[in-house]
Amino acid sequence: MTARTRRPARPVPTDELGQLLFDVFAQDCPSRHALENVTGRWGLLALVALRDGTARFNALRRRVDGVSEKMLAQTLRTLERDGFIHRAAQPTIPPRVDYTLTPLGRETADQLFALIQQIEGRMPAVLLAQSQYDER
Amino acid sequence: MTARTRRPARPVPTDELGQLLFDVFAQDCPSRHALENVTGRWGLLALVALRDGTARFNALRRRVDGVSEKMLAQTLRTLERDGFIHRAAQPTIPPRVDYTLTPLGRETADQLFALIQQIEGRMPAVLLAQSQYDER
Repeated sequence: MTARTRRPARPVPTDELGQLLFDVFAQDCPSRHALENVTGRWGLLALVALRDGTARFNALRRRVDGVSEKMLAQTLRTLERDGFIHRAAQPTIPPRVDYTLTPLGRETADQLFALIQQIEGRMPAVLLAQSQYDER
Repeated sequence: MTARTRRPARPVPTDELGQLLFDVFAQDCPSRHALENVTGRWGLLALVALRDGTARFNALRRRVDGVSEKMLAQTLRTLERDGFIHRAAQPTIPPRVDYTLTPLGRETADQLFALIQQIEGRMPAVLLAQSQYDER
């Protein structure tokens, strides 16, 4: 098999009762897509930003430094569809849209926050590894 | 400011002693790049696959369903440069290359594994949310 041959996708496995066993290692498992949505460049930061509480679109955009309006809107729609965030259009003038974590989103955001803290805390080791690698 | 204007990058903040305070929310902070490397589509799965122990390139490629040879090689190089994995070329015939998590990589892989378990376990809620969203 050459490097360019796409392997046939592994089916989503089931247990002895035929229940789906979700497995992110299987290419076509829906859990892999959900994982990619919450660990994507903007999805991850938007979820963690919402741990601080309900936020409006523009506040999120300022917090998630570097995201475009279009990418943030698309990211928030995907996270809403997957059930991680709740979107509430307020009947005010001018209209206002608030985003809030759902309980599921909070669980996930807490996991992602722990990961961020670990990475930020270990950056001196990462930078040292990078300079040693580059000197070889 | 229009949607297309790139905001000037926020500088990496420092504390009162001038020490860098790493912040993944700042676009140009090196911690954001490190975070993206470990949460990228293939980096995340490769790190978690290596929790099971040292593995050769082809074993990793089989485990990380859907990755191409080229993308896996590039992913492993990045993770090695950041200090998350160790690459050891064995002086055997035929030559053999083993990949292992470093202690730093293990900490990160454990965080990622917790995230995967949470997502896989909550997939019934995610699928329900998706079908409710699509019916609106």
